[in-house]
Amino acid sequence: DKQYKVTVLPGDGIGPEIVEEGVKVLKQAGKQFGYRFQLDFGLVGGGAIDRVQTPLPQETLRQCRDADAVLLGAVGGPDWDQNPPELRPEKALLDLRKKLGLFANLRPVQCFPGLEESSTLKKDVVNGVDLLVVRELTGGIYFGEKYTEKTGKGEKATDTLVYQEHEVERIMRRGFELARKRRKKVTSVDKANVLESSRLWRKVAQRVARDYPDVELEHMLVDNCAMQMIRRPAEFDVIVTENMFGDILSDESAVLTGSIGMLPSASIGEGTKGLYEPVHGSAPDIAGQGVSNPVATILSVAMMFRHSFQDEEAARTIEHAVINVLAQGARTMDVAVPGDLALSTDQMGDRVVEEL
Amino acid sequence: DKQYKVTVLPGDGIGPEIVEEGVKVLKQAGKQFGYRFQLDFGLVGGGAIDRVQTPLPQETLRQCRDADAVLLGAVGGPDWDQNPPELRPEKALLDLRKKLGLFANLRPVQCFPGLEESSTLKKDVVNGVDLLVVRELTGGIYFGEKYTEKTGKGEKATDTLVYQEHEVERIMRRGFELARKRRKKVTSVDKANVLESSRLWRKVAQRVARDYPDVELEHMLVDNCAMQMIRRPAEFDVIVTENMFGDILSDESAVLTGSIGMLPSASIGEGTKGLYEPVHGSAPDIAGQGVSNPVATILSVAMMFRHSFQDEEAARTIEHAVINVLAQGARTMDVAVPGDLALSTDQMGDRVVEEL
Ligand SMILES: CC(C)[C@H](C(=O)O)[C@@H](O)C(=O)O
Ligand SMILES: CC(C)[C@H](C(=O)O)[C@@H](O)C(=O)O
Repeated sequence: DKQYKVTVLPGDGIGPEIVEEGVKVLKQAGKQFGYRFQLDFGLVGGGAIDRVQTPLPQETLRQCRDADAVLLGAVGGPDWDQNPPELRPEKALLDLRKKLGLFANLRPVQCFPGLEESSTLKKDVVNGVDLLVVRELTGGIYFGEKYTEKTGKGEKATDTLVYQEHEVERIMRRGFELARKRRKKVTSVDKANVLESSRLWRKVAQRVARDYPDVELEHMLVDNCAMQMIRRPAEFDVIVTENMFGDILSDESAVLTGSIGMLPSASIGEGTKGLYEPVHGSAPDIAGQGVSNPVATILSVAMMFRHSFQDEEAARTIEHAVINVLAQGARTMDVAVPGDLALSTDQMGDRVVEEL
Repeated sequence: DKQYKVTVLPGDGIGPEIVEEGVKVLKQAGKQFGYRFQLDFGLVGGGAIDRVQTPLPQETLRQCRDADAVLLGAVGGPDWDQNPPELRPEKALLDLRKKLGLFANLRPVQCFPGLEESSTLKKDVVNGVDLLVVRELTGGIYFGEKYTEKTGKGEKATDTLVYQEHEVERIMRRGFELARKRRKKVTSVDKANVLESSRLWRKVAQRVARDYPDVELEHMLVDNCAMQMIRRPAEFDVIVTENMFGDILSDESAVLTGSIGMLPSASIGEGTKGLYEPVHGSAPDIAGQGVSNPVATILSVAMMFRHSFQDEEAARTIEHAVINVLAQGARTMDVAVPGDLALSTDQMGDRVVEEL
């Protein structure tokens, strides 16, 4: 049996309920494919602030360091929105990314058969959308120096966007490697007509591209990319971009197909360790009602098999199980259309487990 | 007669042909509403680089300083794409904005009756879209310190995002003033969970809002805004945001209604002087063929009447003329659908002049 340690961080809002379904699928797929898991549950986000006055307790960080993979639900909620930066649930995400060296955030966006109608874009526009956003996750303006000063004419706030050549290089290589296994096209997104860091970004993209002659490289300005994503999303394959642009563009791309409740993400580094979480947030408004959509978390578990356990077969099996139950008409409330019988969170998880 | 000096900067690509139609409409509306214009033509962008080795010649800057309003076509093209930052056409735009103190960029986005079909979004989603992006234009990461250093492990590039309280305050007030004349809702967009400058942004938004109790203020994170713009664009009224977020979001919003060839912009400061230009670029691929869409430039002329000449009536008259000719089926190639007889650039301009 293959043995892995998985740290599970349910978090806030709907986090616990969707993670429960993710764990069900993890266990079932593990059984089928010969895995033994040691599951370790930890505190993170708002819940951790309430109990131990910090969004990322030392113990949680240790659990994540020890683990082969981390499954995270979601963090945040109105209770902590007014807190100072250090006591906000999101701070846990930023710290985890940085401290675990998870510099690459992968967000695949696909159009699920049968769900084309739930997009606000026309069917022929989202048909065939199959893109992957590769976002740099541990550099840029998120982690640069930031401070506020008092001046004679009021306050003055500064943030700093810094990129080092090697940071750009490693994320770019990751993008090219991934493109090789897909449709062999990288769109490198920057703002090279304004930013110094983007000019470095573009230069490194061009240099790295030489090592991947089989992959096409195109450069696109971030403003144009925000447009093209709505105009012709099916033409993108792999989008590689810096932290802040990636934050904006990946959220934009996530709603293209209308199914943000379905979209998984992986945050990975040099090794095979990764953090897996749904793209959507903690949805405090529907928490505890058992109506949330666990598909994004389940697909994040599939990504865990792919990247952390290097098991493409198990990953695909989970993904096909999800596609099949969706094709059979299984829907949670968020994607149900009039006439559908909406399933609860755990019914949806059970359907995927049965299908496996 | 009201007398005004207008500096006209045709620029590159399709710039000259669309500006010609804009000037036609300016003259016609001027005649009808009792204006005498002194028109002053100047060099800008790539054309200026070719002739006098700088994208913004001193003479052009002087012409703009002297003018009551500036009408600009578009700048840029493949010939200058490899140039160093100081010798790029876009540099002229950045310098003009800064040197003329045009800190507010207004981009209204509307769904034109009869053109709903040309959007990639579903008709019921774009129906009723009527939003205004108010983008801060002379601060933030565009104008902060930027440099690249060599280090032991390769290059390191830095950009700096700085906002002063009074810079945020004046753009915010502008947003609230504009919202007052519209649907009385301001969406202030920031990334307050990560950026220090965004926390200042949000604080100032809250303070300014107290002076406008009749206007509703909502805060939205930039990543969420990029999503909501596709999910429920009709719910936005006035969006106020910083320079870089505004660059991205205003381009995204510009394609919502499918008609980037139709969208105007105004860049204004404390006084009535303004720079008016279409949102679209120089489109070098179709330049010189007489097929470009002059509507965005014509509507920019309408904005000139509104903001620089404080003549709401003339502005509306031009806007209605455009809406009417579109409703009559007049279309340039970019928005024509199969079966339409596409008009040339100058035929479209003539139709608007006739309608006036
Ligand atoms: C919560 C926030 C700090 C975070 C980010 O901006 O990275 C989130 O938006 C994301 O994309 O994971
Ligand atoms: C050309 C470029 C510098 C400019 C900007 O980013 O401001 C353009 O994209 C715009 O929005 O006017």
